[in-house]
Amino acid sequence: MAVSMSRGMKRVLSFIQKNNLKTRSFCTQKASEVKGLHEGRVFSGIQPTGIPHLGNYLGALESWVSMQNDYSSVLYSIVDLHSITQPQNPELLQNNILDMAASLLACGIDPARSILFQQSVVSEHAELSWILGCLTSMPRLRHLPQWKMKSKQKGEGSVGLYTYPVLQAADILLYKSTYVPVGEDQIQHLELAQDLARIFNNSYGQLFPEPRALLSSSRKVKSLRDPSSKMSKSDPQKLATIFLTDTPDDIVFKIRRAVTDFTSEVTFDPVGRPGVANLVSIHAAVSGQTVEDVVRLAEGLDTGKYKTVVAEAVVQRLEPIRQEIQRLKADRSHLESVLVEGAEKARSLAAPVMQEVRKRVGFS
Amino acid sequence: MAVSMSRGMKRVLSFIQKNNLKTRSFCTQKASEVKGLHEGRVFSGIQPTGIPHLGNYLGALESWVSMQNDYSSVLYSIVDLHSITQPQNPELLQNNILDMAASLLACGIDPARSILFQQSVVSEHAELSWILGCLTSMPRLRHLPQWKMKSKQKGEGSVGLYTYPVLQAADILLYKSTYVPVGEDQIQHLELAQDLARIFNNSYGQLFPEPRALLSSSRKVKSLRDPSSKMSKSDPQKLATIFLTDTPDDIVFKIRRAVTDFTSEVTFDPVGRPGVANLVSIHAAVSGQTVEDVVRLAEGLDTGKYKTVVAEAVVQRLEPIRQEIQRLKADRSHLESVLVEGAEKARSLAAPVMQEVRKRVGFS
Repeated sequence: MAVSMSRGMKRVLSFIQKNNLKTRSFCTQKASEVKGLHEGRVFSGIQPTGIPHLGNYLGALESWVSMQNDYSSVLYSIVDLHSITQPQNPELLQNNILDMAASLLACGIDPARSILFQQSVVSEHAELSWILGCLTSMPRLRHLPQWKMKSKQKGEGSVGLYTYPVLQAADILLYKSTYVPVGEDQIQHLELAQDLARIFNNSYGQLFPEPRALLSSSRKVKSLRDPSSKMSKSDPQKLATIFLTDTPDDIVFKIRRAVTDFTSEVTFDPVGRPGVANLVSIHAAVSGQTVEDVVRLAEGLDTGKYKTVVAEAVVQRLEPIRQEIQRLKADRSHLESVLVEGAEKARSLAAPVMQEVRKRVGFS
Repeated sequence: MAVSMSRGMKRVLSFIQKNNLKTRSFCTQKASEVKGLHEGRVFSGIQPTGIPHLGNYLGALESWVSMQNDYSSVLYSIVDLHSITQPQNPELLQNNILDMAASLLACGIDPARSILFQQSVVSEHAELSWILGCLTSMPRLRHLPQWKMKSKQKGEGSVGLYTYPVLQAADILLYKSTYVPVGEDQIQHLELAQDLARIFNNSYGQLFPEPRALLSSSRKVKSLRDPSSKMSKSDPQKLATIFLTDTPDDIVFKIRRAVTDFTSEVTFDPVGRPGVANLVSIHAAVSGQTVEDVVRLAEGLDTGKYKTVVAEAVVQRLEPIRQEIQRLKADRSHLESVLVEGAEKARSLAAPVMQEVRKRVGFS
């Protein structure tokens, strides 16, 4: 994992240098270690694609939770406007929005310290997106990686799919956000938001800060059935992915069936032994230990026995979350009221910014 | 004029037949001749590009006024979101919005019988536009005539310019409009709105009527300096265009300088004598007479003397409008309150439709 992480980071950093991107390294300090909160505002969004999996949790949500302790203003949006850039079943989408709210709360997103809200409820996102679209040239979007990938998969993509990086920029700028946690695959989209802040400020006078990337430790959990690919919600192999709502039995069963190899020893070698390395890094992440500690503690165990240890650690970490998700899902009106309150707070930040934008553009 | 009108109409009608467009011929009956109001809702928009000229008035605004007598529900929107698809000076844009409101009111748009409002104030336009954009394929917009023309003029157009027909569709469908007055150049855009109504209804259940074109008599006023081109706001020749705020002296001067030819007789021959024919058709339109009547009454006059007659008729028609524009422009708070009231009425129609759209899509 250490090897693959440092490679990933190197790639990200060289990309950033090449593209002159402004970034800020994200510290995973615990709240108790923080002397004071960082100034500035964090914004991030997640599509309502159902219950998150272990990869989502360790790769992003865990750091979302800790950012609540590190930054004075934090917004997390369930970005349903983005989700319809691909066809959705409406009933499922509606459920997924509430499931995502329940999952985020269960993971530790605390409405008292961060604003959790549903994007489409705050109309200013779509309004600012239109205005920013008028400042974006058509070719600027043509080479963004997600369009190239997804429009190829689907034959020809929709206008929504093509223009969604502009909506993303609006999501960020609408709150004058200063920090955006990003994965490697989103860096070019953040660059567009930075460009649009600059373009707007140049045309209409300084208004938006240029948002900076928060590079989270790019921990990538792999599929349990094919450690060469990322753990994914849509993996056709049912045993490949651990969801936050998996029961202890599910988790034990999936990890017991995880693809390893014919060597029985436990080592950390992501290139030569990716299956075992994936288990080691999951283990380290869920137990809060280093990879080295985990490997040392596993000395003398064969991979079969080690799987039981890993499964136990994962269960220990996820079981409280699973139970909390179940509890919250049973209380739909509570979830709805959390989202209503979050939307009110988001709107109270968005409305004056949008009013100022309208004035600058000449609408009022 | 009769010749050129029938040619124009033939072109429109053949286009419509070829493209299977649903249309409804627009009757220019006077209110007194109408037995009852037509059911259904008319929607139209106009960009705030400053004071309208005689061509705007005779080609569109006059029929907007009479539609108030013919249809039970009529909405006219000053479409400022559309205007920023091209760069705008914010201060000028702000003035132009109020100037357009004053001009429409002065022409006879009556807030008691039609809803007059500023588009950007009703956030549902941008919201529905995003959703419809997710139902529009990228190539669908590539061949629309305005994109082809304007993106060529400007090198590469913006995302806003590319996607504005989707916003137009949202403008129309948001009010479940059934009729849309269109010029020939907008027919393909209306066809997109019809397609999007169908696509939405097929995906999410019947909600939107397919809006039908109201083909107004395609009266095209020509430039006074070059009768081969349309009268235009942006004509570099200052004497080419009569604005609704031109004083009687301005009008007399411009018409006296209108390009005609070396024959002194007054006839109507748009092909052979386009300059004189333009004066005849302006005369007929402003005085409410037929072209034939106008030509018969001009017997014995040379074109020089005839220009005085035409100028007088134009002044008679435009002077009350000019004075009313001046009066209204001096009362900014009245204009603003008319727009605020209009926006409230528009919002009260748009909100329940948008609420239903959100439900159908799965947002709530």
